[in-house]
Amino acid sequence: MSTPRLRDVAERAGVSIRTVSNVVNGYARVSEERRARVEAAVAELGYQPNLMARNLRRGRTGLIALVVPELDVPYFAELTRAIITKARQQGYTVVVDQTDGEPDREREIVMGGAMAAMFDGVILSPLALSQTDLARRDNSRPLVLLGERIAESPYDHVAIDNVAAARAATEHLFDIGRSRVAAIGDQPWEGGETAQLRTAGFRLAHEARRRRLDESLIVTNRRFHHADGAEAMAALLDHPKGPPDAVFCYNDLLALGAIRTLLSRGVRVPEDVAVVGFDDIETGRYNTPSLTTVSPDKSTIAWLAIDRLIARLGERADDEPTELWAPYELAIRESTAG
Amino acid sequence: MSTPRLRDVAERAGVSIRTVSNVVNGYARVSEERRARVEAAVAELGYQPNLMARNLRRGRTGLIALVVPELDVPYFAELTRAIITKARQQGYTVVVDQTDGEPDREREIVMGGAMAAMFDGVILSPLALSQTDLARRDNSRPLVLLGERIAESPYDHVAIDNVAAARAATEHLFDIGRSRVAAIGDQPWEGGETAQLRTAGFRLAHEARRRRLDESLIVTNRRFHHADGAEAMAALLDHPKGPPDAVFCYNDLLALGAIRTLLSRGVRVPEDVAVVGFDDIETGRYNTPSLTTVSPDKSTIAWLAIDRLIARLGERADDEPTELWAPYELAIRESTAG
Repeated sequence: MSTPRLRDVAERAGVSIRTVSNVVNGYARVSEERRARVEAAVAELGYQPNLMARNLRRGRTGLIALVVPELDVPYFAELTRAIITKARQQGYTVVVDQTDGEPDREREIVMGGAMAAMFDGVILSPLALSQTDLARRDNSRPLVLLGERIAESPYDHVAIDNVAAARAATEHLFDIGRSRVAAIGDQPWEGGETAQLRTAGFRLAHEARRRRLDESLIVTNRRFHHADGAEAMAALLDHPKGPPDAVFCYNDLLALGAIRTLLSRGVRVPEDVAVVGFDDIETGRYNTPSLTTVSPDKSTIAWLAIDRLIARLGERADDEPTELWAPYELAIRESTAG
Repeated sequence: MSTPRLRDVAERAGVSIRTVSNVVNGYARVSEERRARVEAAVAELGYQPNLMARNLRRGRTGLIALVVPELDVPYFAELTRAIITKARQQGYTVVVDQTDGEPDREREIVMGGAMAAMFDGVILSPLALSQTDLARRDNSRPLVLLGERIAESPYDHVAIDNVAAARAATEHLFDIGRSRVAAIGDQPWEGGETAQLRTAGFRLAHEARRRRLDESLIVTNRRFHHADGAEAMAALLDHPKGPPDAVFCYNDLLALGAIRTLLSRGVRVPEDVAVVGFDDIETGRYNTPSLTTVSPDKSTIAWLAIDRLIARLGERADDEPTELWAPYELAIRESTAG
């Protein structure tokens, strides 16, 4: 049999072509009973709507821009995979651009201009663009922000609860008997909002457990790569009041870098220093010791971002900006559990 | 001062606007002396040619498609970063697509169709597309292949010498006194050409050093992720003739997975089993033990691919297909050196 078409589905389901079209496009109100019959026929025949043609009919390019700071940071690579997969299921192609945190590059795609005209919408993990920039955006195409919302921006954003997650990670370190806990990755400057929320959670955990916080154990970092974690950990080992007995790192690369420093200096993990990361990248699971980490649900983040963008391209174009929260969990492994 | 324009550069250099245009576009013959003056003026004024406008004038979209199997495999993520950077320097925007090795997905962009029309050219790391597919390609846009050339395909390809690299990695294991060397990652089927070349190098090393090769120590793998390396290593440890004393893994993820299995079973690396990987991903440098690995020059691979594609878009459209070789080196670290 040749590739099934709308007509074949309508015949099999015993409904009009218009009804099938309404169901597969998710448009209009169709009774539950008729919807079920159409869906059964779609499944039986293996019908696949020509999503690209549909986009073109609607005056769309079918292209979504995904703008991330660094593609070779595994968290972004894994999230990018998830977003490409979800978008494809909806008939969209994702154009990935990495900005390296250059404001001009972020502006080029997000704010407008020749490039921006190619995309039906943009998903942005902002690094360099400020609140002021986004407030000036003169571009009617939907924009969904990933990570912490830039305060007061008029856009949807998808994030996990960073304060609660950081607090849970820190309290876990108290739970396993640690008392002198350091933090690696604070960014007390504009653009460092996500890190600041994690520091807030780190502080909250101390307050909730009535622990004294040694401010000198909070280390700031411009970048979040292995080398930065390795360097920060080396400094903490030489701390004038002695090294910490646990470290909460704001991403897994920092944590893996820190573990490298600890092991190469003969410090045992977790016996002498326990380590928690953030992101749950695959390589942390295969490290020795395997890495305890905050595991954001990347698949849900991807789904929420794509779903929101597509909603804005359709009937819900004028909804109020929404904050969408994805779940996370603390994955406890050898770097804290021994 | 406002953004410098062509006119400003011409005035500063004391040449015509046409001369400046010829220099910045790399077009025509300009005397060395005049070229130097223009380049000095460009540098002094900080002039940046509007590359996107230039592309549009030439009937180009300025878009290059980069098609890779998996973006969250660090080797591809790091290579993608390098290609995006090089392309941007030439005024091109890279659209990244991951195919997950699905033949239909690779075909959609490489072979032709609505999507393909958007791109000036394609850089493809083929996984699913066969020689037969590529021979049928009906699309005049330039295509550059990454990795091993599909035999007889009429396209440029950029690769490192996989046979020589694999041989060097294996001989290094003999050099440090190992005699029973396993290989993880062979793919003796269509699409596994790169792996087959590495196996050829592994065999050559045995012949060159007059070592007997135990064929049962060559392990095949469909995928090249941590889990596959961990599993393969577990099987090798239970080998009926006893475990190997060294393993050459066809990528770093396999190697990191293998090391995880070794350490979690109390086997020392490198004292009991030495491990070599392939790709030189950042995380291998921070593993404990740090990973000895074949390090392809990703920056040169990216440069050659972009340079070749742009040449085909210009005067050298009809050159014979070329094989371009990028350098590599063996980065010796703790997993073999102790």
